[in-house]
Amino acid sequence: MAASVTVENLNPKVLKCEYAVRGEIVIHAQRLQQQLQTQPGSLPFDEILYCNIGNPQSLGQQPVTFFREVLALCDYPCLLEKEETKSLFSADAISRAKQILATIPGRATGAYSHSQGIKGLRDAIAAGIMSRDGFPANADDIFITDGASPGVHMMMQLLIRNEKDGILCPIPQYPLYSASIALHGGALVPYYLNEKTGWGLEISDLKMQLENARSKGIDVRALVVINPGNPTGQVLAEDNQYDIVKFCKNEGLVLLADEVYQENIYVDNKKFNSFKKIVRSMGYGEDDLPLVSLQSVSKGYYGECGKRGGYMEITGFSTPVREQIYKIASVNLCSNITGQILASLVMNPPKVGDESYASYKAEKDGILESLARRAKALEDAFNKLEGFSCNKAEGAMYLFPQIHLPQKAIEAAKAAKKAPDAFYALRLLESTGIVVVPGSGFRQVPGTWHIRCTILPQEDKIPAVISRFRAFHEAFLAEYRD
Amino acid sequence: MAASVTVENLNPKVLKCEYAVRGEIVIHAQRLQQQLQTQPGSLPFDEILYCNIGNPQSLGQQPVTFFREVLALCDYPCLLEKEETKSLFSADAISRAKQILATIPGRATGAYSHSQGIKGLRDAIAAGIMSRDGFPANADDIFITDGASPGVHMMMQLLIRNEKDGILCPIPQYPLYSASIALHGGALVPYYLNEKTGWGLEISDLKMQLENARSKGIDVRALVVINPGNPTGQVLAEDNQYDIVKFCKNEGLVLLADEVYQENIYVDNKKFNSFKKIVRSMGYGEDDLPLVSLQSVSKGYYGECGKRGGYMEITGFSTPVREQIYKIASVNLCSNITGQILASLVMNPPKVGDESYASYKAEKDGILESLARRAKALEDAFNKLEGFSCNKAEGAMYLFPQIHLPQKAIEAAKAAKKAPDAFYALRLLESTGIVVVPGSGFRQVPGTWHIRCTILPQEDKIPAVISRFRAFHEAFLAEYRD
Repeated sequence: MAASVTVENLNPKVLKCEYAVRGEIVIHAQRLQQQLQTQPGSLPFDEILYCNIGNPQSLGQQPVTFFREVLALCDYPCLLEKEETKSLFSADAISRAKQILATIPGRATGAYSHSQGIKGLRDAIAAGIMSRDGFPANADDIFITDGASPGVHMMMQLLIRNEKDGILCPIPQYPLYSASIALHGGALVPYYLNEKTGWGLEISDLKMQLENARSKGIDVRALVVINPGNPTGQVLAEDNQYDIVKFCKNEGLVLLADEVYQENIYVDNKKFNSFKKIVRSMGYGEDDLPLVSLQSVSKGYYGECGKRGGYMEITGFSTPVREQIYKIASVNLCSNITGQILASLVMNPPKVGDESYASYKAEKDGILESLARRAKALEDAFNKLEGFSCNKAEGAMYLFPQIHLPQKAIEAAKAAKKAPDAFYALRLLESTGIVVVPGSGFRQVPGTWHIRCTILPQEDKIPAVISRFRAFHEAFLAEYRD
Repeated sequence: MAASVTVENLNPKVLKCEYAVRGEIVIHAQRLQQQLQTQPGSLPFDEILYCNIGNPQSLGQQPVTFFREVLALCDYPCLLEKEETKSLFSADAISRAKQILATIPGRATGAYSHSQGIKGLRDAIAAGIMSRDGFPANADDIFITDGASPGVHMMMQLLIRNEKDGILCPIPQYPLYSASIALHGGALVPYYLNEKTGWGLEISDLKMQLENARSKGIDVRALVVINPGNPTGQVLAEDNQYDIVKFCKNEGLVLLADEVYQENIYVDNKKFNSFKKIVRSMGYGEDDLPLVSLQSVSKGYYGECGKRGGYMEITGFSTPVREQIYKIASVNLCSNITGQILASLVMNPPKVGDESYASYKAEKDGILESLARRAKALEDAFNKLEGFSCNKAEGAMYLFPQIHLPQKAIEAAKAAKKAPDAFYALRLLESTGIVVVPGSGFRQVPGTWHIRCTILPQEDKIPAVISRFRAFHEAFLAEYRD
């Protein structure tokens, strides 16, 4: 008789995979949240504040009205034939829903679509990319996906043959990358962002890490760049992007550009440039550089995480390789149609002159301006804490402060068999209900300790978050000061 | 400089993977459809009829009204505060939407949920399973997924370590299984359904194939059973299910029960029994048998393929193994919330006394009765074609007739470098616009040839489908008769 399933005989790639943003601390937080429900008053706080993940609507951000109007009309199209609908929905939401339904064969929002997504929606996305970049985009290059993550998995699945295939990833990195590389059995080749220069990406370090990996027999296949950065919040300068593209072209690497925070920029002196735009500005075309650009409806001002919409735009791959990507996509049939529709809407929102434009613009600006203020308030607060140093969040949804922990705290963590920043984050959770992710979940320069904290608590809660955090930190230092 | 990406240096597991239901013939059909648009009248037919995949709404099946009402209200909850809504939506859809929103933290349908899905929706699904089976079900055992496919991939990822790990699959099988096993680098261990006994599953064959695989050093980890069958349409008898469960228990196999067609039964003498019910009826509990049951919103009378909703119910796995399954689920954060809501609705539809019950019941019965008539009409038509023999579709959405092809046709296929049934299907497409999948895409007893044809064309089109098919077949035989 065969042994049944035990943790010892599972796929070791699964065992090796880690995903800190939903890891041990978050599972512990969910337990505490249940405890708050069943035994109110039993903990030193009365709510759990999830700052572990970029999930704006879970913390009270409201969806953009226009997007939801269109989704509701597409879900239940017979509303479009009713007189009352005109008083319940904006005129441009009604016309947009009609236009979208007209592009769906049989108006069937409940049918599997083409494996890359509905052609008419990919046309709208391509038009949005063209209007963003000023260079042509093609619906045939778009794969609409359930959020951005499936695009990452697809590319890892395509490129990684065995543990000798490497992917260059920034450290610190969003752990989807380390998790996906582990699940596909490849090697994560780290390059280090320079905390001292605001998490700068240095080509010299990239080159050194690449050569180091190659000297160990690793076939480095792709470079991951997250811009704006996660967990680090920096926005790449245009010059730096040119150098990155040249590096990838010279070294024969796929450039995997995670651009899901493209709408989240909070400083005046930086602006988002897609790598597609940079590549085309340099005069490079289809034959020069394989490029994958990822976008998601979960981030930006839209924050529609639960809808699981996103896309990848792939350029610079040969037809036989594209056929393989299509095949992988087709095994899962298609992404969800609601997410597909939303992906087309975020790339083609209301325009000046549309009935919804003013309210849409007010909602968008309100969210982004508030996020900028929250980022600044938290950054300032962190920099006032003893032993904290925090770079500016130029973009994305996170701060990633470094914490200089006292030796005594490091010893206590060691005794508790935790990384020091995980120990700190756990104590923070148990004292305040604030959930952050330890830097060790993203990897970091050895011997440094960080936490990632989202900027997403609603603005009126920020002062309380800061004072709870400060009180905890002071008590922690008082307990462990060397 | 490294070589860039070519089809030669991709992951060989990707290259090996095949997925016939969206394969070469379907891609060719999409090309012909474009040709019909750009050059009307240039082909011997005026529409493409996709009978390749169980995608009911693409062929005109309408969604169930109640489900869509609830989805629209959950997408745009401020409708619930408007007076006009009462005249546009049924009272029970309004109260159900309110009830669902109340179970979602912050009523946020745009937030990532718990990685297994929203707890309140899993409670509804568990209640639906309990009412179906008469045995308890637990929300903690439910993983809500984007359709059923991600559940299959997750289990393959968990169980397959290398090419020496085997999964017993029925032949013919739904090619998601062969594709997923190939992508994860395992071995498909075939067992043959007996066409002569209406695609019967024989334990003696299972046992022989298992022993044969073990003698080759394969560690067989799981048994896949698709009930009702895809592509074969049979419904397992209860006694047979008991034997299958005993076999899995004795041999230490995970039982992976694909039960996505549980609502699609077209004969009076058969009834669907979930394997969960069978296992519990036998007195087996958590410690006896690891069981995974898959369900989807894409099939049944609902046919909501584009919504990508589904779930797997896992029982009989140890806590450490469950933690690994949770971890894999968490790397993708969560499935789409619209699909999650719909999964809860199909497992908990309107009940007697609800305002929508009569219309819901009429829609459901109308769809299922029509499917039964269509299955019978196509089965009869196939059995009248020279050289065809077709088993009854007791359930699911497919017929899988065997075609005895003349030797001359087999030679012509060989000359065209096609499997004979692929050659036949391609000729059928080019002559009639009807898209079916060759049996070779599902695997079959060597030397036999089949096609899979869905029963999904709308009922008023069935006579035309049959006459087009018959005319083609007669002409094909006239051309190739030995």
